[in-house]
Amino acid sequence: MATAVPPLKDELDIVIPTIRNLDFLEMWRPFLQPYHLIIVQDGDPSKTIKVPDGFDYELYNRNDINRILGPRSACISFKDSACRCFGYMVSKKKYIFTIDDDCFVASDPSGKPINALNQHIKNLLCPSTPLFFNTLYDPYREGADFVRGYPFSLREGVPTAVSHGLWLNIPDYDAPTQLVKPRERNTRYVDAVMTIPKGTLFPMCGMNLGFDRDLIGPAMYFGLMGDGQPIGRYDDMWAGWCVKVICDHLGLGVKTGLPYIWHSKASNPFVNLRKEYNGIFWQEEIIPFFQSATLSKDSTTVQKCYVELAKQVRDKLGKIDPYFVKLSDAMETWIQAWDDLNPPAKLASTAKLTK
Amino acid sequence: MATAVPPLKDELDIVIPTIRNLDFLEMWRPFLQPYHLIIVQDGDPSKTIKVPDGFDYELYNRNDINRILGPRSACISFKDSACRCFGYMVSKKKYIFTIDDDCFVASDPSGKPINALNQHIKNLLCPSTPLFFNTLYDPYREGADFVRGYPFSLREGVPTAVSHGLWLNIPDYDAPTQLVKPRERNTRYVDAVMTIPKGTLFPMCGMNLGFDRDLIGPAMYFGLMGDGQPIGRYDDMWAGWCVKVICDHLGLGVKTGLPYIWHSKASNPFVNLRKEYNGIFWQEEIIPFFQSATLSKDSTTVQKCYVELAKQVRDKLGKIDPYFVKLSDAMETWIQAWDDLNPPAKLASTAKLTK
Repeated sequence: MATAVPPLKDELDIVIPTIRNLDFLEMWRPFLQPYHLIIVQDGDPSKTIKVPDGFDYELYNRNDINRILGPRSACISFKDSACRCFGYMVSKKKYIFTIDDDCFVASDPSGKPINALNQHIKNLLCPSTPLFFNTLYDPYREGADFVRGYPFSLREGVPTAVSHGLWLNIPDYDAPTQLVKPRERNTRYVDAVMTIPKGTLFPMCGMNLGFDRDLIGPAMYFGLMGDGQPIGRYDDMWAGWCVKVICDHLGLGVKTGLPYIWHSKASNPFVNLRKEYNGIFWQEEIIPFFQSATLSKDSTTVQKCYVELAKQVRDKLGKIDPYFVKLSDAMETWIQAWDDLNPPAKLASTAKLTK
Repeated sequence: MATAVPPLKDELDIVIPTIRNLDFLEMWRPFLQPYHLIIVQDGDPSKTIKVPDGFDYELYNRNDINRILGPRSACISFKDSACRCFGYMVSKKKYIFTIDDDCFVASDPSGKPINALNQHIKNLLCPSTPLFFNTLYDPYREGADFVRGYPFSLREGVPTAVSHGLWLNIPDYDAPTQLVKPRERNTRYVDAVMTIPKGTLFPMCGMNLGFDRDLIGPAMYFGLMGDGQPIGRYDDMWAGWCVKVICDHLGLGVKTGLPYIWHSKASNPFVNLRKEYNGIFWQEEIIPFFQSATLSKDSTTVQKCYVELAKQVRDKLGKIDPYFVKLSDAMETWIQAWDDLNPPAKLASTAKLTK
């Protein structure tokens, strides 16, 4: 199955939530410069973001979001990297790669710089295997296959919607773990990509993430975080739980593992604890909710699934805190805004083009 | 969580189905000599198996099995490595490591010989996490932990019942894949151990396998294969499907990944195709059966679970082929024989000792 990876230059956008660090783009220049960047500024719109010469980009700040979405802009978080999902909505491409500005280029065990985007494309272009576990990891990878006992009827796999990459150096820990293990670094390069099985939830980190926007885009909503909200640092988790339930329902795959990036900087654990505090309690009820969530047969598109899930969020999580009623409303608003900016006619023609 | 691994010399038996190759034990001597071996000869009992000096072992051939089990010996396969499960039954130890005689000592990427047994013990002594996926693999390993978004209430994990090790060099492929890819070798050392999520089946290979006999022993039945049976090479698969359903029901964990052994020799794909032929068709119905199998609340022990599963095999798989009715009977016979050789009183005292 191993073939050269098409670069997909006209089919992929890179979404970055603010760039505080100019070195970031310089370091990624060899890999990212050929692509179009969508930068979504998370804070004060009067501050200027500098982008080095040679990059093709569009930049959205809060004023732009308000102007484009009008009253619906309330569904996009402010002063939080969760605002990045606005970039998913305005993109017109099939694939998205999103990365944080403290993620640098990692090296593989031989010392070679890792082209993370290239690996995400590989992951997204080959199928997933959520219905049965393959002990030799991704069966489509060169030098691997399905092992003895893997049912032949399942070997075609399903389309891959999400490619979740990992992090060397600073691991993606919650505030309590950061506080307890301030010096822990991830030094282990695990040379594997695997499908997360159907029915299993995972903690999706938004630092280094690729996805097929046509297949799952409308579910990649990063929730209400940051300014004025009682919770932070659960934006990508929220998206991950929703995405996984919907992928399982629609027969789509989620992969995790390679590629690694080098996560350069640990965020402040005290600040993080304040942001995470409510989430630490709430997730104990949110996870069982998502683990038992089922969607109806009528929900045949991502949008329909997402609206159905939003209703369940209101009904079942609303009793935890009024926040979830507001979030449920925002989920519906997000879908309305998505459909406004991505009218079905256009989607249909995109689908035709990519078949 | 990283501590020195106790060798468990008095608590572990090594079960080997026949030794055709004297180099095998010589190669493993540094790691296996301190342990007790149980060798279960799979073929002609008049042939002598030579065991090099210095090993502490007991050897069972077909005559021994017939003598010990009487009429119940019919549940143990003849002329097939599936007979190894007789060794699990006669062992009196808490842990079992089973390995094939064509599995040699592998080296890690630094060139150091891998003590596979040591890694199995590590895997079995630390918990599993079947209820939620951890993207940094085994969270209990040194240098790793639970990532952000992993529910705190699930971080204690569950007891690990099975440690499934992998193979470098010759991968464990079915006959069709062997025929199509005769030269494929597994050269990738994936430095990871992971829990197979609850509700997900996997193809369990018996070549390099550790398990906690007290926790899951009675489910480690390798079925009816070989002489007089319409199927072969599904012994470990059958055990794996049953084991996984029962582990999920009883809240036990199954790990896969490290340790690697060096699988030296590909078996003959033409012979394998003859053995696997029926299984290739049958597994298309067997897998959905196990995927949807549920056990009742009354099944609170492995034995009760196994007998309940045997009934379901008769009822639901019996229509595929009369073989499954025979297999269902053999599953019940196996449990009777297990309980005869492992009377509950003894089990209770063992449980007390190990608490």
